[in-house]
Amino acid sequence: MSSAQRKTAIRITRAEDFPAWYQEVVKEAEMAEPSGVRGCMVIRPWGYGVWEQIQKRLDQRIRETGHQNCYFPIFIPLDLIEKEASHVEGFAKEMAVVTHHRLIQKDGKLVPDGQLEVPLVVRPTSETVIGEAFARWIRSYRDLPLKINQWANVVRWEMRPRVFLRTSEFLWQEGHTAHASRDEALDETAMMLEVYRDLSENWLAVPVIAGEKPESERFPGAVETHCIEAMMQDGKALQAGTSHFLGQNFSKAANIQYQTKDGGLELAYTTSWGASTRLIGALIMTHSDDDGLRLPPAVAPSQIVILPIIRDEASAADVMAAVDALAARLAAERYLDLPVRVEVDRRDMNAGEKRWSWIKRGVPVILEVGPRDVASGSVAVTERVALDQKKAIIPQDELVSGIATRLALIQKQMFDQAVAFRATRIRTDIADYDAFRAFFSKEGSDFAGDLGFVRAAWCGTRESEAKLDDLGVTIRCLPYDQGDVAGRTCVLTGAPATVEAIFAKSY
Amino acid sequence: MSSAQRKTAIRITRAEDFPAWYQEVVKEAEMAEPSGVRGCMVIRPWGYGVWEQIQKRLDQRIRETGHQNCYFPIFIPLDLIEKEASHVEGFAKEMAVVTHHRLIQKDGKLVPDGQLEVPLVVRPTSETVIGEAFARWIRSYRDLPLKINQWANVVRWEMRPRVFLRTSEFLWQEGHTAHASRDEALDETAMMLEVYRDLSENWLAVPVIAGEKPESERFPGAVETHCIEAMMQDGKALQAGTSHFLGQNFSKAANIQYQTKDGGLELAYTTSWGASTRLIGALIMTHSDDDGLRLPPAVAPSQIVILPIIRDEASAADVMAAVDALAARLAAERYLDLPVRVEVDRRDMNAGEKRWSWIKRGVPVILEVGPRDVASGSVAVTERVALDQKKAIIPQDELVSGIATRLALIQKQMFDQAVAFRATRIRTDIADYDAFRAFFSKEGSDFAGDLGFVRAAWCGTRESEAKLDDLGVTIRCLPYDQGDVAGRTCVLTGAPATVEAIFAKSY
Ligand SMILES: [Zn+2]
Ligand SMILES: [Zn+2]
Repeated sequence: MSSAQRKTAIRITRAEDFPAWYQEVVKEAEMAEPSGVRGCMVIRPWGYGVWEQIQKRLDQRIRETGHQNCYFPIFIPLDLIEKEASHVEGFAKEMAVVTHHRLIQKDGKLVPDGQLEVPLVVRPTSETVIGEAFARWIRSYRDLPLKINQWANVVRWEMRPRVFLRTSEFLWQEGHTAHASRDEALDETAMMLEVYRDLSENWLAVPVIAGEKPESERFPGAVETHCIEAMMQDGKALQAGTSHFLGQNFSKAANIQYQTKDGGLELAYTTSWGASTRLIGALIMTHSDDDGLRLPPAVAPSQIVILPIIRDEASAADVMAAVDALAARLAAERYLDLPVRVEVDRRDMNAGEKRWSWIKRGVPVILEVGPRDVASGSVAVTERVALDQKKAIIPQDELVSGIATRLALIQKQMFDQAVAFRATRIRTDIADYDAFRAFFSKEGSDFAGDLGFVRAAWCGTRESEAKLDDLGVTIRCLPYDQGDVAGRTCVLTGAPATVEAIFAKSY
Repeated sequence: MSSAQRKTAIRITRAEDFPAWYQEVVKEAEMAEPSGVRGCMVIRPWGYGVWEQIQKRLDQRIRETGHQNCYFPIFIPLDLIEKEASHVEGFAKEMAVVTHHRLIQKDGKLVPDGQLEVPLVVRPTSETVIGEAFARWIRSYRDLPLKINQWANVVRWEMRPRVFLRTSEFLWQEGHTAHASRDEALDETAMMLEVYRDLSENWLAVPVIAGEKPESERFPGAVETHCIEAMMQDGKALQAGTSHFLGQNFSKAANIQYQTKDGGLELAYTTSWGASTRLIGALIMTHSDDDGLRLPPAVAPSQIVILPIIRDEASAADVMAAVDALAARLAAERYLDLPVRVEVDRRDMNAGEKRWSWIKRGVPVILEVGPRDVASGSVAVTERVALDQKKAIIPQDELVSGIATRLALIQKQMFDQAVAFRATRIRTDIADYDAFRAFFSKEGSDFAGDLGFVRAAWCGTRESEAKLDDLGVTIRCLPYDQGDVAGRTCVLTGAPATVEAIFAKSY
């Protein structure tokens, strides 16, 4: 990286102030912005375009795994959400509550009027309302499994909002299923976590550690919560998707019963799983650099942008014709089973300014075509992942025929870089609490230093986690790929260890 | 139709009780159902599948016409929505208001807590919050036109809810644009109405009358509201899409200013336009019959369902293999530039029961394959539009090669039927108020009778519309295809007419 030798496009670098750098990247890329409403964001076209790519891929996988989309109400009556006690306890502190259904003029001011008998909660998640529907729809074993999904907005009131990462309103999908057996529900839970892992690693190029949450970090009301955890460039963890095995907890609350083959009556086992616009935050904090956003080709709204370089009026028409022809040829190529997404930047603006705007927006490939390129059939190529290299001038034919390979290589390079970064930031040599405390006691954001994950042996007791609280650290997951803990001691308490855990500060 | 001679699949006929019939069709087709929340519906997979087809087509057209998708917050602060006076006045009576941001336990009960300083309205539409964003984003003429769209849920509190037609929460898209000139904004308004007309007529097979709303029926804050109006089978009108020219009203309220080429400062002209899940209600009430839903192939989630007819264990495997092969061949065909959507019904259920379930769900083509069909390579074909005809037994090859044509003919037939029905229910011979009053004074729903639209000359004054109020009639639109009104008199007042209008009761 040459960022040390030149002025960077983002005015605050990661090393200077990671959180401020993040805000700047989001702003300069025109991904999103704060709205007038505390904690709510406006997702701008470039940011929403990334979400649409994520949606498209995830929706396809959700269908292929046998789920159907539907839509449930945004409002949940207070008396309904109270039914599962630990569930409501988990969300009570962050619920938006609708109490009135109209406004009236009073002393020249608009005020709420028409008070509701039962207040309505704006859904923070939909287990309760979907559970009610499941109870209506499920009669016999023939109705199982029941596997549905919805794409929706949810609200969890946020006192310290941060765009994409913690917003009062966010967009997500939530899957909900009911099964006749515990094993089938556990299989579903695992299958959907694998869908998220694949999405994260192969589409977002964000490597993750898959595992189970300790009891303290479970979804309110779940029997097991499984998750994928990604590492951001400041060494903090971000949960990129969760899949919950709910056992019969919500079935009991909503009375989801079915008649078995032999005429008995049983409670169904349910699951739920979700991924949200937080993924975009994960993407940004994993891949971006001091020149702005970098998007993996798989989820870039445009994978290629072509800048016409107009020197004078005389050659303008020729250049535009060549640019349009090149765009058409590229759009006829395919990458990941879809047409290549290419855009021509026709804005009435200085070429250098245009180029930097696309660098900050993280488009994977920038092409420039000027009068000389028209004559020679060539094109200047910049890859966002290799800004420190000189523009390559290559024949257009070569560019077109090799575009799918080029995009795939960029995608792989971004994933490999993120894996390599993470490898340097996972400590496996911290074995006692003194070293553990020292490692996590560093202040502030930490792009330059060595803050990261600690992978260590743990005794598995809830009490031991008290030693994490004042450090602002949590157990992110008990990774599926467990090392041998025989004879090892807990990093927190020194007691005999039962399991390996990932410890980290987190978003 | 043979429905007079046999028992129909829907237990209440259109002639008996049109509104009750509608509810039954929705329920039996498993399109949607009331939720525990007053006025909010659960959209079930088959109903949501229709919405996804509508979305796919409309989203494509919205992109092709130069708009970008994005997402704005669901909450609008009270002080923001007050800025455009006539706008807030139009929506004040039906707004859900969030007043608190958490719940706490008090005397063993959960109660709202954490009162907000400024209450938040759940968006009934987003002109105000998007106007604020436009004011931030637009600096100069170079930033215009700005053309965006969002797919979202909105809430308009409904005292007399009716599934798909009037629900407190509904799904829609809302487009919002800003332009440098009045003419360009008017062109945009017209272009998007034409997109809706095309969607309605060519995808939903619902014929519509396009025109402008009279002043009394305009969107709150609009200068002009244009609409498409469909006729339901009870002769009532349903507004299937609207496109608003907002002039500079919202630009003034939000201060959407831009610098002109010569350095001046001007207010932008804005438009907005929307279509919602109401379209599904229009679809149902236009096409369904006393045997349930009928779906036009263009928007059917599955266009074809194949029922395996299993006589005995011995031939079951052969039948299933033949069914799967036929499904694969059909899915390889294309209709409307998309793969044909075909589904195999593998449920463990009686074949007759299955057949009727699909008839009630309105799938356009039902195929049955039994052991004899396997041997002869044939298939039994039922078209939902021709239930009174005997099943046709035809060679599978013929079915496959002709499937696109067959679907296109069904689509055309459904549109033609709806056009023909409408033609019998538009009265153009009612010229004075006595006849007008008599026509619209009939009680109740009217599938069997002649309730419908009156197309008549009108004087164009707002006062004259008072004569409509007690009849429950409104002016649906001033149709674009105007007849000559020279020398004619107003059907309401007898004064000289200035324009032709469509009068009707409506949803
Ligand atoms: Zn321990
Ligand atoms: Zn008149």
